[in-house]
Order: sequence, then C-alpha cells, then structure tokens
Amino acid sequence: MTTPNAVVRVKGFRFSALSVGIKKDGRSDLALAVADQSAVAAGLFTRNLVRAAPVDVAAERLRAGRARAVLVNSGCANACTGEAGLAATLSTTAAVGRALGIDASEVVPASTGVIGALLPVERIVARAGELAAGLSAENHPAFAQAICTTDRWPKIGHALVGANGATLLGIAKGAGMIHPDLATLEKQATLLVFLFTDAIVERDVLERSLIEACDTTFNACSVDGDTSTNDSMIALSSGASGCRVEPDELTTAFRTVCDRLARSVVADGEGSTQIVEIRVRGLGSREQARAVARTIATSLLTKTALHGRDPNWGRMLGAAGRAGVSFDPALARIAVGGVPIVERGVTLGTEAEARAAAAMKAESYVIELELGTGPGEFSYLGCDLGHGYVDVNAAYRS
Amino acid sequence: MTTPNAVVRVKGFRFSALSVGIKKDGRSDLALAVADQSAVAAGLFTRNLVRAAPVDVAAERLRAGRARAVLVNSGCANACTGEAGLAATLSTTAAVGRALGIDASEVVPASTGVIGALLPVERIVARAGELAAGLSAENHPAFAQAICTTDRWPKIGHALVGANGATLLGIAKGAGMIHPDLATLEKQATLLVFLFTDAIVERDVLERSLIEACDTTFNACSVDGDTSTNDSMIALSSGASGCRVEPDELTTAFRTVCDRLARSVVADGEGSTQIVEIRVRGLGSREQARAVARTIATSLLTKTALHGRDPNWGRMLGAAGRAGVSFDPALARIAVGGVPIVERGVTLGTEAEARAAAAMKAESYVIELELGTGPGEFSYLGCDLGHGYVDVNAAYRS
Repeated sequence: MTTPNAVVRVKGFRFSALSVGIKKDGRSDLALAVADQSAVAAGLFTRNLVRAAPVDVAAERLRAGRARAVLVNSGCANACTGEAGLAATLSTTAAVGRALGIDASEVVPASTGVIGALLPVERIVARAGELAAGLSAENHPAFAQAICTTDRWPKIGHALVGANGATLLGIAKGAGMIHPDLATLEKQATLLVFLFTDAIVERDVLERSLIEACDTTFNACSVDGDTSTNDSMIALSSGASGCRVEPDELTTAFRTVCDRLARSVVADGEGSTQIVEIRVRGLGSREQARAVARTIATSLLTKTALHGRDPNWGRMLGAAGRAGVSFDPALARIAVGGVPIVERGVTLGTEAEARAAAAMKAESYVIELELGTGPGEFSYLGCDLGHGYVDVNAAYRS
Repeated sequence: MTTPNAVVRVKGFRFSALSVGIKKDGRSDLALAVADQSAVAAGLFTRNLVRAAPVDVAAERLRAGRARAVLVNSGCANACTGEAGLAATLSTTAAVGRALGIDASEVVPASTGVIGALLPVERIVARAGELAAGLSAENHPAFAQAICTTDRWPKIGHALVGANGATLLGIAKGAGMIHPDLATLEKQATLLVFLFTDAIVERDVLERSLIEACDTTFNACSVDGDTSTNDSMIALSSGASGCRVEPDELTTAFRTVCDRLARSVVADGEGSTQIVEIRVRGLGSREQARAVARTIATSLLTKTALHGRDPNWGRMLGAAGRAGVSFDPALARIAVGGVPIVERGVTLGTEAEARAAAAMKAESYVIELELGTGPGEFSYLGCDLGHGYVDVNAAYRS
C-alpha cells in the first residue's frame, strides 16, 4: 500500500504532475487525473463552516454526478481568499479544461496548503498544456507525490472490486490538520482522497459506498483534532473494466482501500512515531462509543503519554469522562497492546503496566476500553504527539 | 500576585504544610488550612464523569454549607482508586479531624497528582498531629507551595472585599490538565483553587459569587483541553473581619482574585511561553462566542503557530469554523496584538502580518476576532504549545 510503484491496472484513467513553484522547494505541486470518457462521480467535503473556494466549486460541479478530471494543487489551500480565490479556481480549471478539450464544469478542483494565500494563477494557466500532455495511465505515483504537503510518503492503495476483474485505485494525502469530518457537502495540511475505479456503478451507489467507507475510516481518525477547510474525498468511476459490481462489493473495496490509506495518513501524522487504535465498547450506542474513542484519541495528555510509551490509563479514563457520554467508571476494563491493566476501574498493578509499556514500543498497537455492558462500540485511529509536531507546526509558514 | 511572601491579613484562618513523601523528590506535598471557627463554605467541582474520591467526599461535606478545614495533598490524585481510594480519603481526613479536635465531616479534602495511584494513608495519618501543630496565620505561602505539582511557581492572590476592611486570599495550583469545567458538583495536574475571606457572608451569596467569578475566569481558560478528574474550587468565609459585605462586593473581589490566579495558571501552563487572550465578538450569543474562543484556544495548530510567533489566522479561522457556531467567514476581522491582519475574511498583507508577528513576541497579548454584527462576545485565556509540554507529559509518571 505504501509501495507507490506497484502497478495498478485501473482502466480508463490517466495521470500527470509537475512543479509550478507553489511550493518553495521545487517539489511537484500540481496534479491532474483525467478519465478517458465522462466518469460517474461523487464527493464528500469538509463540514468546517470555513470552506475553501475549491471545495465550494467541487461540490457544485459534482452535483451533476459526472466528471472528467480532477485538478489538485498542493502548497496553497486557496482558503479564506475571497472573490480572488474563487476566480483563481475558476480560471485554473478553465485553462485545464481548454487543454483537455472539455468543459471547465467537468474539472473538479482540490487544494491543500497554506490558508489565506492566493494561487499563482498565471503560472498554472501557462503550464496547463504541459500538464495535459504529460498524462499517462502509469503516472499515478507522480500524482500521489504532487498532492503531498508535510507528508513523509505518498499514500496509494488498491483493491479488486468484486470478483470479475474491476479494480480500485485510491490516492490520499495528509499528515496534519487531520481530523476529518466529511459529509456530502466537511475539514489545512488537509485530507485529500481520490478513488478511481473502472467498475460500472450508478452515481447513487458510488456516493453511498463513499459515505459508508468514510464513516469507519477517514471519519474515524485524527492526527491533531483540527478539521481542515479543504478536506475532500472524490470518487470517479470510469466503467472501463466493463464489469458491473454489486453495491456491497464496491463498499467493501472502498473500505479496504480507505482503511489502508487512513492508517497511512495517521502513521504519517506530523511528528508522530506510532499509530494507535482506540477500541471502545460497552456503551449505550455506537455514536457514544465514537465520541469517547475520539475524545481519548485527541486528548493532548493521552497523546503525550503515548509518546512517552506510558500506559497512563488515568488520562485515558479522564478523557472518556469529559466526552459527554454516560458510563460507570467503576466498571472500566482497559487493555493496552493486549495487556490488561485495569479491571473494575482500578489498576492491575505496576507489573501489568510495565508489560503494557513494553507493548507500546510497537509501531502500531490497540488500546481497548470496555466501559459497560451496552452494545455500542467503535474503533478510532490516533497517534502520539511528539516534538516533531511542534517543530513542523511552529514553523509551517516560515 | 505572584509574590507569595506578600503579607495578607485575612482573619480567622491558619495554614500548615509538610512533606510526607508522596512526591518522590521530597518537596512538600500535604497542606492544611483551618478556620478558627466553623466557616461558611461552598465549592465547585469538575463535571468530568470520572471524579476522584476526594471530589465526591468534598462535595458531600460542603452540602452542609459549613466547614472547618481543607486538607490537600499533591502528587497523588486519588482518582480511579475504587473503594480503597474512598477509604483513604475518609481515613486521612478523620486523622486530621482528630488532631484538630473537630469532626471528620468538617474537613474538606482535595487531591492532585497521578491518577490511579493510592494515597500513602499511614504516612499521612502518622503526621496529622505535626501538620496541625504547624498551623499559623502567616503560613499560607507554605500551603500554596505544597499543593503544587508541575507548577513552576505557587499562585497566590488577594483583594479587599468592599470598603470596610474585609479581605480575600486566593490560592491556586495548576499548569497542566487545565481545561476547567466547574459546577456546583464539575474537572489531573488539576486545577485547585481555595478562597479564604474574613467577610461575613451567607452561604447562598458565597456560592453564587463563586459561580459568577468562575464563569469568566477559570471556566474561561485552558492549557491543554483536558478537564481533570480532580478540579476543585472551594471558598471559606470566616466572618472574622466583622464586616458584612454586599453580594456584588464579594463577586467583584472573587473575580479580581480569580482572574489573577487564572492568568497565573495559564502563564504557568506546562511548556508554554506566553499567555494569549482570545476575544471573540459579533456572534449570536455569548455562549456561541465562548464556543468559538474555546475552540481556537484549544486548537493544536493554533497553539503551535502561537509558539512559532506566527499570526497564522487561517488556522484560527479554521478552528472557528469547526466550533459548531454559525457565522459568515467573509465578514471576519482579525487583529493580533492590536495589529489588524484580516478584514472581510481576507489578509491585509504580509507587512501587517509581520507587524503582528513582532507583537507576538510579548509575554502576553490579545487576539481579537470579530465574526459578525451580533451581540455575543466572550474572552478566553489560552497559551502556546511548545516542546516543554511534550517533555513534561511524555515523562510525567517516570
């Protein structure tokens, strides 16, 4: 999954990328994906009230249920840029549309990077032809690289859809400002996810599968609790495999790829050194379990304790207690990395905690909290908070 | 206010402190305050669902509206300790009650420190007599020191109550796990606040003034967003000045002292290097303004940008946008350290931002966000997040 050079034969799409100097260091920062024919399309967007111009434009264009291209820039979020920002999105997508010989309304935009800065429209417009000329079916790794910001690695995943040869290619970026809250119309380093499939699917099925896959993957993970102004998750289906698939098959494939991509995003969390899955069960409802798991995963005291490989369950239980959910702390059972450390709300002792601390040296482990006997359970992905996060984000714009 | 040796002549109270070895480094960790006569008493407690044994016991005992003593230990929160924890609180307050010749029910407990660890009951019981023997009217600085955990300095404040000679002494501790949410029965380094006055006041007035003062001070500040299991704010009135005061006079004095103490707590925030006041106005209601200000003050991306002295208003506006409050980002005006940097939702340019960045080098400054034309406004205290926070909290229990 984190092997970006794996050959993925998703049919009907071509990819291109280049550097137009939005990023100061010369890395590629403009990416284009094009469907050979009009593709079935759906998108989920940040529910942050402050939405970037490209989010508004993409949501509007995807109402048609079809699209031909996705144009993505990194290095500039084009958020909080007013009329000039909207004009920049319209101009750049129009230029790419002209270069492709399609209508601007078929080009879906996405941006990630610094909030408040304006896109260098002229430089993007001037290179639109070159971007289009570089399109190739094998070029998705360049697309994945060009959409990165603070990412340490590109995120690519793929899966079969059903059993008849249809495929799915997923590409994501994100390492900070990761606390997605995506809906059909929601969150700066920003989460961007693009799913390309050659299965034949209806728009409604595509959208429904996207929502269901997002719910337990991207909408169930957090790096820093800050929901971005630009989060976008866009799916295109070319149908070029000629294979018709069942809705469940598509949802399963979306879930598989989104789970891998979400884990990669959290593992790449700015300054994080580990990925931790918080599994909460025994509460009144799934949404209550989600609220508790999310509160623990975003608790600064918990995240710094994880960084110190300290199974500080008191901080976890303290975070659970402020989640606005009712439970009896005296029933709490907690295990870290498979090692039970709390039964009936009290510690099992320093020896158990020492074994848990040893288990926390893994790159990835699970923290389980059983908080009662109810049916509600939820699993949420988080990470530790270390010095790297401070380094990256105290100096992000300098 | 941060001059713990100032002579404060609050009448009718005596203080004592010593080290019983709860803290590993030998610093004082047990503190006692005693009223010469039965005092009018009220308390506010954490609304975290997970409450420490001393919180439950203190809330129960304060129902009587009167108390004689406050017994505080640092180094151990006595939270998530089950029946043994409750027994420890009962035994230790009973021992101090015996040493003072008063009933255990008149001794109000408070604890702060590691969650899940048990109090060393025997050591506290064995030293109860010595603790009582050390009581003196001038010993409040020792009390203030003994209740500290990760605090870099003790927090002491005082004020006159009204104009007739009644006085107020406030003592607080706290530097991490600071996100108080205190109510008549609400929040680990934990916030503890003790207010001693010699004014003559009724219980209802004491409680009402405590609630009103807390609302705009301790309940309007955050270091790390983690509400503690042990936060307690306890007020005792000895009446020993002989001065009857008006409710407004008491509230004003409480607000003055609590504002100073809250600022000192946030300034002492673990790893923080500055104190930042977030003033939000123009929203539909005060509670909406509070929600937006609190979300900005607790945003990791905002706090790390502050640490880098970067007026990254896009992160602030992004945080405002996920606060669950309705406003028009296109109307936003933002000023940092008195320097306007955003008008009508867009930047005023790099020169303005450079001046704002220079203003952020102060130890304390104000960030103003005007988000519309509504009447709702609120001011919230926060701080930056730097490497020190990670250092303190990755290694807290080791």
